Amino acid sequence: MKTKIAVANGDGIGPEIMQAVLKIFKAHNVPLEYEFVEMGKSYFDAGHSTGMTDQAKETIEKLGILFKGPMETPKGKGVKSINVTARKVWNTYANQRDFRTLNGVETVFSKAGIPINLTIVRENIEDTYGGIEHLLTYDVAVGRRIITRPGSEQVIRYAFEMVRRKGYKKLACGHKANIMKLTDGLFLEVFKEVAKEYPDIEASDIIVDDLCMKLVSRPQMFEAIVLTNLQGDIVSDLCAGLVGGLGFAPSANIGDNISIFEAVHGTAPDIAGMGIANPTALLLSGISMLRFLGYSSNAAAIENSLLYTLEQGVHTGDFGDKSTPSLGTTDFADAVIANLGKVPADGGVFADADFQVKQNASPIKNKLTLSTGAKVEEEMIGVDVFVESKVQPGELAEVAKKSLRFNENFNLVMISNRGTQVWPTGSIYTELVNEYRIRFEKKPGTTIKQKEILHIAADLSEDVKVCSVEFLMNFGGKIGYTLAQGQ
Amino acid sequence: MKTKIAVANGDGIGPEIMQAVLKIFKAHNVPLEYEFVEMGKSYFDAGHSTGMTDQAKETIEKLGILFKGPMETPKGKGVKSINVTARKVWNTYANQRDFRTLNGVETVFSKAGIPINLTIVRENIEDTYGGIEHLLTYDVAVGRRIITRPGSEQVIRYAFEMVRRKGYKKLACGHKANIMKLTDGLFLEVFKEVAKEYPDIEASDIIVDDLCMKLVSRPQMFEAIVLTNLQGDIVSDLCAGLVGGLGFAPSANIGDNISIFEAVHGTAPDIAGMGIANPTALLLSGISMLRFLGYSSNAAAIENSLLYTLEQGVHTGDFGDKSTPSLGTTDFADAVIANLGKVPADGGVFADADFQVKQNASPIKNKLTLSTGAKVEEEMIGVDVFVESKVQPGELAEVAKKSLRFNENFNLVMISNRGTQVWPTGSIYTELVNEYRIRFEKKPGTTIKQKEILHIAADLSEDVKVCSVEFLMNFGGKIGYTLAQGQ
Repeated sequence: MKTKIAVANGDGIGPEIMQAVLKIFKAHNVPLEYEFVEMGKSYFDAGHSTGMTDQAKETIEKLGILFKGPMETPKGKGVKSINVTARKVWNTYANQRDFRTLNGVETVFSKAGIPINLTIVRENIEDTYGGIEHLLTYDVAVGRRIITRPGSEQVIRYAFEMVRRKGYKKLACGHKANIMKLTDGLFLEVFKEVAKEYPDIEASDIIVDDLCMKLVSRPQMFEAIVLTNLQGDIVSDLCAGLVGGLGFAPSANIGDNISIFEAVHGTAPDIAGMGIANPTALLLSGISMLRFLGYSSNAAAIENSLLYTLEQGVHTGDFGDKSTPSLGTTDFADAVIANLGKVPADGGVFADADFQVKQNASPIKNKLTLSTGAKVEEEMIGVDVFVESKVQPGELAEVAKKSLRFNENFNLVMISNRGTQVWPTGSIYTELVNEYRIRFEKKPGTTIKQKEILHIAADLSEDVKVCSVEFLMNFGGKIGYTLAQGQ
Repeated sequence: MKTKIAVANGDGIGPEIMQAVLKIFKAHNVPLEYEFVEMGKSYFDAGHSTGMTDQAKETIEKLGILFKGPMETPKGKGVKSINVTARKVWNTYANQRDFRTLNGVETVFSKAGIPINLTIVRENIEDTYGGIEHLLTYDVAVGRRIITRPGSEQVIRYAFEMVRRKGYKKLACGHKANIMKLTDGLFLEVFKEVAKEYPDIEASDIIVDDLCMKLVSRPQMFEAIVLTNLQGDIVSDLCAGLVGGLGFAPSANIGDNISIFEAVHGTAPDIAGMGIANPTALLLSGISMLRFLGYSSNAAAIENSLLYTLEQGVHTGDFGDKSTPSLGTTDFADAVIANLGKVPADGGVFADADFQVKQNASPIKNKLTLSTGAKVEEEMIGVDVFVESKVQPGELAEVAKKSLRFNENFNLVMISNRGTQVWPTGSIYTELVNEYRIRFEKKPGTTIKQKEILHIAADLSEDVKVCSVEFLMNFGGKIGYTLAQGQ
């Protein structure tokens, strides 16, 4: 039985590299059928605010698999990136990118004789990519960095499963939990919990800056790394650089209902239509898709012929030995086709058993709620009120105390500026911006209500501009907020 | 006249590498006097919660310059990192790290014949390093990422001045403003404004993931890069990897009143006291300090002798040609001393004119307020209320509307989950965590008060748990908050 997938050609060089890849698939009798969908720049231009037609959306949601070329989002029109929209709206929570030394593609690391073979799994929905930002004052912008327990669990579990499927031995968690103790701390905590279910896999964690230092000096240390969204973005592009750039690395966005396989390089409008673009990244993404769909023997055969072809020095104009002639896109694809059945010198990749994935047949009716379902005792402790002010901390403390005049249940415990405590004690050298945090906590033995707290903030707002309010909670007896530097 | 500075030996290998560096300084008659201060692990252990004595703090604040060895912060005792405390409390807003190929130190890049010579300037106070984090629900953690206009201006201005002083031609701004539009957008906006004052310097900007890809493939493209705190942290450790690791790169934390020059590598307790530690990073930091203090000819002479020494293959046990014997810490220092006056094969570094910096003579009385002083028209637009809920979006919308029953000035305009709009429209595939954002905006033509908004939140809190409140403001007619994905 054939599997039907949605295909979007993309913009710029998209159509020609897609054609090359599908030609290779056809030559190898890959059991896929394609339904081409309308997405990309011209659909933005035609007035589709999401960059795709309703028909395209429907087809993708029906088939559950999208294979896409690079796409361009028009700039300055206030529309969101079609690539980001696709990842978010369809909840493809895991971005997987495989990076491997390709013989024939010269890099700093190939020159130094250091082989690269590693996989990055990046969380794809959360972190600052939630895009929740506010200007609190004209001088102060705040972005909310969200990390959730169930969202972390989804991507971490995917990473462990991927490691096991690939036959890797280890998985590292990259993070910055030493600084971002609650957010990255949560991600790391979930990593350690999930790791217990995979005793066959060596789980370790590493601070992200140390990770980057090691990736550029001893990348052989790693097999697979899972990270939060922004750190994963940075680390995966760093790794692309190790193997020759975005033109040589596949990308898969995996969700429970819909998954997207794409080339993440640009649309290269300057060479579009000239038939000289390099289809390698899209072909590698297509190979990942075949493997995901259970066509492991097809995937291995095509991958081996590609690796063999590159190893022979066959190249498009953007890489390889400039003293030998470069091939156009179609000729490159034909070379890969001619080499079907060949394997590279190192023996190439092996196929796992084929299997057939189920198609996304039954559309879901309600939005899915992600929850760990944990029952944890909660206690409300107080509130952080963020205010705009240019006065010195001692003066602001008097204003804050005044707001407590109708409520005896609270104490003013701390004022900070950019996270550093400036009241009741602090350093004279701490420079101040015009936004402070004022922390009120309940007195021991009292029970407080949200409503009272919001009324205190309302009273405070008569004397000073309130920008934000964050409640302070304890969960399961553990403090659910950080202390200020110096507190 | 001699300059008096504070010196902290540090923990582990700190004392021996500091001794080696000061020996080299002495042999070259560097015009410094030292006041040794008590900081580090043993002072934490003795009950000093900040890891230093009051006397140490006083001395450092009086002298304005601290030269420090690596220090250890005891783990699990709830104390903050002494290195981070020092940077924050004394407001050393710019972290400068110079990365250069050292002949004799083999790296992937030296093997590939690619020379490295670049400087990273990292903002040192803001970003997620403010450490302001809250668990909103047991499942959802939020960190507040702060970027301020005056804080950005301080570090960006420092970077331009540094570029000019070094005789570089260009400065790049690394950022992720395509995703973090308000926060990194603000940093980039300030960069572009300040750049206008430096027409002699070629200013450009680059997305941080692309930057990392280019740094591992074509690092020669860059001379100097300025970044926000976390991205700068990641990029500077990446660059340390390019030149051989933390043992080969200096670090300076620059503030208006106090500056800190330090080795950022660890304390290596396993080899402490054995006399085999590598003093190169601390020596390079000391050379940066000499240059900062105006002793440019001392700095150049010592740097040239170090470069010459390394080039000759002289090495400690942690690097270099293992077939030649390694030297201990003191012998390595003596080799550098013996080579004073020598220059490396490429001609080495040149001295600028010496000058004498003013000492930090007059202590400040009030905290400094950082402000751009811009007068901008403000308008309050509405509020985002973040709530804990497990119901479907439509049901939550009914609850939210109910909270408006006492106030006709507002509309419920949007509900989002992890930044993606889920009401009034949204995709069925958007998975939900148990924390929603509800956005209320004022009706056109009305004027609203903070107090009314906080009362709406208080009313809402009777039906659903409120986690956070963020006011929506426009500044100078420009929208001061982001739209939800899909809004």
